[in-house]
Amino acid sequence: LDYQHVQVPFEITLWIMLASLAKIGFHLYNKLPSVVPESCLLIFVGLIMGGIIYGLNDKSPPVMDSDIFFLYLLPPIVLDAGYFMPSRPFFENIGTILLYAVVGTIWNVFGIGFSLYGICQVKAFHLQDVSLLHNLLFGSLIAAVDPVAVLAVFEEIHVNEKLHILVFGESLLNDAVTVVLYKLFRSFCEMPTIKSVDVFAGVGKFFVVGLGGVLVGLSFGMTAAFTTRFTKDIRVIEPFFVFLYSYLSYLTAEMFHLSGIVAIIACAMGMKRYVEANISLKSHTTVKYFMKMWSSVSDTLIFIFLGVSTIGENHEWNWPYICFTIIFCLIWRALGVLVLTFFVNKFHVNTITGKDQFIIAYGGLRGAICFSLVFLLPDFRRKKLFIAATTVVILFTVFIQGMTIRPLVDLLAVKKKRESAPTVGEQIHIRFLDHLLAGIEDICGHWGQYYWKDKLEYFNSKYLQKILLREYDQPKSSIVLLYEKLERKHAIELAEAGQLGHAPSHPSLLNNDRTVITDKKLEDTLNPDILENIQEILARNLYRIRRTGPAYNRHTLPGETEHVEHAKEILILRHKSL
Amino acid sequence: LDYQHVQVPFEITLWIMLASLAKIGFHLYNKLPSVVPESCLLIFVGLIMGGIIYGLNDKSPPVMDSDIFFLYLLPPIVLDAGYFMPSRPFFENIGTILLYAVVGTIWNVFGIGFSLYGICQVKAFHLQDVSLLHNLLFGSLIAAVDPVAVLAVFEEIHVNEKLHILVFGESLLNDAVTVVLYKLFRSFCEMPTIKSVDVFAGVGKFFVVGLGGVLVGLSFGMTAAFTTRFTKDIRVIEPFFVFLYSYLSYLTAEMFHLSGIVAIIACAMGMKRYVEANISLKSHTTVKYFMKMWSSVSDTLIFIFLGVSTIGENHEWNWPYICFTIIFCLIWRALGVLVLTFFVNKFHVNTITGKDQFIIAYGGLRGAICFSLVFLLPDFRRKKLFIAATTVVILFTVFIQGMTIRPLVDLLAVKKKRESAPTVGEQIHIRFLDHLLAGIEDICGHWGQYYWKDKLEYFNSKYLQKILLREYDQPKSSIVLLYEKLERKHAIELAEAGQLGHAPSHPSLLNNDRTVITDKKLEDTLNPDILENIQEILARNLYRIRRTGPAYNRHTLPGETEHVEHAKEILILRHKSL
Repeated sequence: LDYQHVQVPFEITLWIMLASLAKIGFHLYNKLPSVVPESCLLIFVGLIMGGIIYGLNDKSPPVMDSDIFFLYLLPPIVLDAGYFMPSRPFFENIGTILLYAVVGTIWNVFGIGFSLYGICQVKAFHLQDVSLLHNLLFGSLIAAVDPVAVLAVFEEIHVNEKLHILVFGESLLNDAVTVVLYKLFRSFCEMPTIKSVDVFAGVGKFFVVGLGGVLVGLSFGMTAAFTTRFTKDIRVIEPFFVFLYSYLSYLTAEMFHLSGIVAIIACAMGMKRYVEANISLKSHTTVKYFMKMWSSVSDTLIFIFLGVSTIGENHEWNWPYICFTIIFCLIWRALGVLVLTFFVNKFHVNTITGKDQFIIAYGGLRGAICFSLVFLLPDFRRKKLFIAATTVVILFTVFIQGMTIRPLVDLLAVKKKRESAPTVGEQIHIRFLDHLLAGIEDICGHWGQYYWKDKLEYFNSKYLQKILLREYDQPKSSIVLLYEKLERKHAIELAEAGQLGHAPSHPSLLNNDRTVITDKKLEDTLNPDILENIQEILARNLYRIRRTGPAYNRHTLPGETEHVEHAKEILILRHKSL
Repeated sequence: LDYQHVQVPFEITLWIMLASLAKIGFHLYNKLPSVVPESCLLIFVGLIMGGIIYGLNDKSPPVMDSDIFFLYLLPPIVLDAGYFMPSRPFFENIGTILLYAVVGTIWNVFGIGFSLYGICQVKAFHLQDVSLLHNLLFGSLIAAVDPVAVLAVFEEIHVNEKLHILVFGESLLNDAVTVVLYKLFRSFCEMPTIKSVDVFAGVGKFFVVGLGGVLVGLSFGMTAAFTTRFTKDIRVIEPFFVFLYSYLSYLTAEMFHLSGIVAIIACAMGMKRYVEANISLKSHTTVKYFMKMWSSVSDTLIFIFLGVSTIGENHEWNWPYICFTIIFCLIWRALGVLVLTFFVNKFHVNTITGKDQFIIAYGGLRGAICFSLVFLLPDFRRKKLFIAATTVVILFTVFIQGMTIRPLVDLLAVKKKRESAPTVGEQIHIRFLDHLLAGIEDICGHWGQYYWKDKLEYFNSKYLQKILLREYDQPKSSIVLLYEKLERKHAIELAEAGQLGHAPSHPSLLNNDRTVITDKKLEDTLNPDILENIQEILARNLYRIRRTGPAYNRHTLPGETEHVEHAKEILILRHKSL
């Protein structure tokens, strides 16, 4: 027996296997996951395993290594989140999300830090040795809402898209703030005196860390898109580039002390559109599948490790400090959401309701990021107290809040997500309205959201697509090719039968009409997964055809583009029929 | 800048990125890969990189770690090879493959070892200190044909299936023999005296190592199949199990000093059939894609590392020893193939031609396995000579033989692989003949290949499928469902029109006929990839329907099975039409 030789990969494989099997186990009994969130069950499994290890070895079980967490477990989850981020609601609410993520997090950090410092002044609690800076440091790590925990809970309760993106977007983007504040306070703790220059430098760092992350991410994302232009002959390694470049963007950002989470999200969101168009359908299925798979296993491992690490002798118990931490976390978050939403609602027509505000405040779950950060603290006397408080806050939020949020959502009748995907007709109308609004904004000189979107779209089609896309205007999917063939055949048939005059004369309306019929027929024979895929492809390609048509567009004139022959063909056919 | 923190994952990612980019680079110029095999180009890139590192640092570049090779780079390639192994030609030629792999390898080891010992006795060569045991040890590592190198070259030259499987199967299965002989001679080298008991124990070990590997692999494969029965609700982690269990089988086998390669191949071949049926089509695409991706990147890394490791000061040059090693490798392999094929041809109708024998002998490429084994040798005076000789043999076989084998195959007009996949008609006929031959063998009491295949098929459908498959007789693919729907509709139409009497009356023939028509129509609209997939699914499902029909089968009586209703329906329809 030569265990030493294979130990490292063997144990890693076994841990992943355990996580996967645990996941299967929960889903075998359908009732369990519908009552308790998976994250709670996984922590519970971890607690049991930690207890067993503790009981057998009589020493604390191994604690989740912060390096392993930040370098290997977190990136897949964030990549998955960024790649599948619904970009429309995200960009529509980007202002609100940033307000929550930046101002809200700072509010929470200082609120929790100062009020805990107040508690420490009470002599009866024996906490006088915890300084203000230490309290602020603790505040900076405990204030951050955790994307992993939020995702795990919110994926199961299906609230409406806007509410989901507000909580989830905040949890992702507050990483930049958390990184800055945490590092700032940690370096302040080690400095003998703090000058006002240091404080200003800290404020400047926000922008560097956040925007630097975005820049690093976008540049890797564009490189990834550019690389996939040249993979035509070796389809099989296409998916690798998506993962490699995203991971490199994360590592590079971490290397320069920027926000890795922000970088990987920017990378994923930036490359998605081009990569999807460049790589084959099979490669894309693989990319999507593997992302989901990795993030799902990472997520499982994190919660199990969280459970395992809880058991042991790392804790110093102090009732008042721990209880007040929970109370302050709840109060300051609730207050922050109320105040910030008040301002947000002043400037928006589509306001955030009271119910939504409650769910945003209540959905501020803490998770493995806090946990890893508290273990990364430099050693000082009260570190074990901080570890205990962090552990309790995480368990409280994941178990109590995580388990009660679903009944609360049902009780309050919070608006839920619509179950069905939008139909092709709806999608086309949304696009049409976008164009219309961009036109109106342009005419009345208002530089709003639609104006910028249209500008970006123009820049994209004029420059980016030409550099980053392989075959610019050729649909690659066989379904689209088949669809076009049928379309042409039908048009010729109509023309030959002389019926084109009676049918709606506008080719694009005809087009639209037919699509819906095809859609209906397909719905009978195909399963929803395939249907959704087809809809997506059709919508994308229909849009491309219509772009050059009569829809209002400042930058193209009808007949200017490469679809002239197509238009001519239709004209000839109509002439014949008349 | 905090490079230390991210160093390990960053460097690994960069190496993989380099490998992937190198692959893209070669395929950008279409002419290059058609002249030079990819493996040669990659070694060349490695040599250049090694040269640069050597030039800059003035010390030998890092050598490929044997642990990294055996634990991380080799398994993906072997898993891919095992999973996509064409099982029909493999099992049809298993006897010949085993003969080459076991007897042929032993022949080569002793042939090369003894003749090199002879060379060492020549005083002019200054090699008298290399003992017989050391020569045999060297023979045991240099005799093994390398699956990675063979695969890389033979994938590009498209020889016929039988020839391919003979060389490739040999290169995979000789691992068991190599492991045993290498470890045996290495332990002999360290023993003061060798008893005859040890020699006998060594012979016994062959069976333990080989059969043990098969057992470990099969048990993990069956567990994997069983696990995928329960993944219905979490499709997204299905693909992981295929990789996890295969890798565990490899690690477990290595842990017990069995043949890891044999284990992972047995695991992959054993699980494939059940896993394919259990997991969703998308999961399966992901599994296939990721296997190809990983193996392709591993393969690239191995050849690049091989190049990098060649540069440096690890070598001791001795012209006669190195030249004679190459000559003996060629001669003994050629002799071995000639002698063994002579015996094989005596017992087979379908003989191996002279041209095929030449390609088998010439295709015996050495690669990274020899290289890793030679670095694992215990330190002794002449280790550097062995390293030099191994490196030269590898470079010689990969460059000279690898580059000339394609022109030689063309020159000799070796039978090539047919380009098109077999049609549904052909597939059905092959299956029909299999049944027929199994019946004939059964009647005349000959326990041949078909008899055992039929037995295995019976055992599989009676026990294994019931335990390992999720939904036993329900096709899951939407294409099959659509096909069945169309089939039923058509049958009813025929019945209503009263045409069923004129059509071929046997339902299975009717079935067959229609399939071919559908096939033709599909061929016009769908691309070959999809077509192949559909053909496979249709063939599998048609077969299942026919199994219970009138084809001869000892173990089922017509009407005994669950398809009674189906048969009844057809009868009623026919009655009506009459």
